[in-house]
Amino acid sequence: MKFKVEHTSKKARAGFFETSRGKVETPVFMPVGTKASVKMMTSEDLEELGAEIILGNTYHLFLRPGSKLIEDLGELHGFMSWNKSILTDSGGYQVYSLSGLNKVTDTGVWFRSHIDGSKHFIGPNESMQIQKELGSDIVMCFDECPALPCTKQKMEESLKKTHAWAKICREFELKPHQNLFGIVQGGLDLELRKFSLETLSQYDFEGFAIGGLSVGEKNEEMRELLDNFTHYMPEDKPRYLMGVGKPLDILQAVSTGVDMFDCVLPTRNARNGQMLTSMGPMNIKNERFKKDNKSPDERCSCKVCQRYSRAYIRHLYKANEFSAGRMMTYHNLHFYLNMMRQAREAIKQDKFDEYYLSFYKDFTSNNF
Amino acid sequence: MKFKVEHTSKKARAGFFETSRGKVETPVFMPVGTKASVKMMTSEDLEELGAEIILGNTYHLFLRPGSKLIEDLGELHGFMSWNKSILTDSGGYQVYSLSGLNKVTDTGVWFRSHIDGSKHFIGPNESMQIQKELGSDIVMCFDECPALPCTKQKMEESLKKTHAWAKICREFELKPHQNLFGIVQGGLDLELRKFSLETLSQYDFEGFAIGGLSVGEKNEEMRELLDNFTHYMPEDKPRYLMGVGKPLDILQAVSTGVDMFDCVLPTRNARNGQMLTSMGPMNIKNERFKKDNKSPDERCSCKVCQRYSRAYIRHLYKANEFSAGRMMTYHNLHFYLNMMRQAREAIKQDKFDEYYLSFYKDFTSNNF
Repeated sequence: MKFKVEHTSKKARAGFFETSRGKVETPVFMPVGTKASVKMMTSEDLEELGAEIILGNTYHLFLRPGSKLIEDLGELHGFMSWNKSILTDSGGYQVYSLSGLNKVTDTGVWFRSHIDGSKHFIGPNESMQIQKELGSDIVMCFDECPALPCTKQKMEESLKKTHAWAKICREFELKPHQNLFGIVQGGLDLELRKFSLETLSQYDFEGFAIGGLSVGEKNEEMRELLDNFTHYMPEDKPRYLMGVGKPLDILQAVSTGVDMFDCVLPTRNARNGQMLTSMGPMNIKNERFKKDNKSPDERCSCKVCQRYSRAYIRHLYKANEFSAGRMMTYHNLHFYLNMMRQAREAIKQDKFDEYYLSFYKDFTSNNF
Repeated sequence: MKFKVEHTSKKARAGFFETSRGKVETPVFMPVGTKASVKMMTSEDLEELGAEIILGNTYHLFLRPGSKLIEDLGELHGFMSWNKSILTDSGGYQVYSLSGLNKVTDTGVWFRSHIDGSKHFIGPNESMQIQKELGSDIVMCFDECPALPCTKQKMEESLKKTHAWAKICREFELKPHQNLFGIVQGGLDLELRKFSLETLSQYDFEGFAIGGLSVGEKNEEMRELLDNFTHYMPEDKPRYLMGVGKPLDILQAVSTGVDMFDCVLPTRNARNGQMLTSMGPMNIKNERFKKDNKSPDERCSCKVCQRYSRAYIRHLYKANEFSAGRMMTYHNLHFYLNMMRQAREAIKQDKFDEYYLSFYKDFTSNNF
């Protein structure tokens, strides 16, 4: 997979990578399409929004409708009619967090489906086989992701598994178009992170992810770890911070040199009535918006903000109309994707710090 | 309001009417936008689908968010950002069918909100005032709509109210751009229908609706009434059959000379997993579609059928993704609007019977 850093602004990087589906400019946000669909959105919407890569969840797709079925119907791209890039996670995180009665062995994890309670096993080989069937462009190694806080001893034991499994994943034969990313673990311990990175580096992955953050630690702890760690990651490979996060967390991570992000926040919060605006998160349910004929975000160029008012979207939300969630999802994804476009532009002009500061100032103003 | 019949094919009519918002070709189907929104759709979707007029529900909008608020925010058109025509019903039907503890007096109906139990009164003056505030292009008279079967005596008493209220509605001063339709009642009794029509004709309404059908009677009874009655209605005014119905019912009514229709069926059934196709209604939940990579309706030109498979939409539905209902709603509305366009074309060529027969043959084949 071709990857190139074209510009830097201090540690922040702007560049691109290329999968067989096309070019993806970085830093990039990947909308989460858990069940072969970004909730409330269609593939047309995502194209219109300018998304260049989305994420699919291996755990969910394995259980329903099944990865073999998806492969038979044209892999994930054909199944959901999405012709740009797709990254699939390994299923590991969901196996621990969503499923019942999971039992971790040296070779993988036994768990019960959150849908029907049926018993399944996923280890590194199974995860690779599922992701191979899904046909994603970027495949993630199957890892263990301990919740924080976690003792050093427990973290070291966990790393052993993650590293052994990474080797198994690397040896698995994927489809020719597929790229494999390694996942660095090690919690908040800089030395363990460096050790994990060093161990994984021998396997020549196409990219590296930082896993195991935003899993219970304090926000400042995560930021500090990134400040101290990101720059140790290979300069010539994409760096992906998994499952993070809030807009300001993303920009902070960009400032440390991270290139790729995913998070359910813009889509999930939309369904709960939160619109992310340049002036901060706006709770559309609020009584103050009842007669507010203004655009949700007056500085936003998305088609929702161009056409509908706060009062109308609030009405739809209060009246339980799905269109409310749909409109807010569209807007929130536009907000994230636009933030990334602006961050890229700022890096190209070597003005990332200025952009970050200006974004921060507005976003914390609540001056709707 | 200008209305013109341009072509006939036996009793079937093709023409157009014009509101201040633009031209509406007839026969026409009006998607139902109960709460200032056609469920799952945005105004862009409706434009893309070619809808020229939609329906709003007075009862729902009166209760939430309130018609005065809507007026202040640009009337219904401005509130929901829909620049084409809107017809609002009178609220009468919903007051009887949805609300609690309704008490009918000679001047209107006391009822309790289905949302919060609050007590309200709507009579002809109130209905006109609400619809005036909503600013719809076509306003419906406030009527009483008895469930069928209904004794002749009860129907006659009900007609007295409906006719007295129609006079009050006619005398109410609406906004200059608004047109008022009278509603003919009388159940399945041809003589009562003719009497009702004759009584209402003195008020010079801009159009006439047939109310009180599809409210408990047999399908054949409705069809027989229409066969015997529709042609008595003024030739130079639009004829609107309220709340009907299934595709074959609509085409039968068109064959008797009806011009306008509305029904929740395409939108409601979509949310329950039913796609209307040229080969009949398709239950997307069915196991047989699990691995079916074909287009939902292979003869359909809508963007959903052009892009997504039965298997994919079924998966989304089974996985509780709202996009499933959204896709099926879009397709079903396209199906209805396209059926009306084809019916118009057939009437213009004086081949409506052939079209109806051919549609019937395919639609009852279930040959997916």
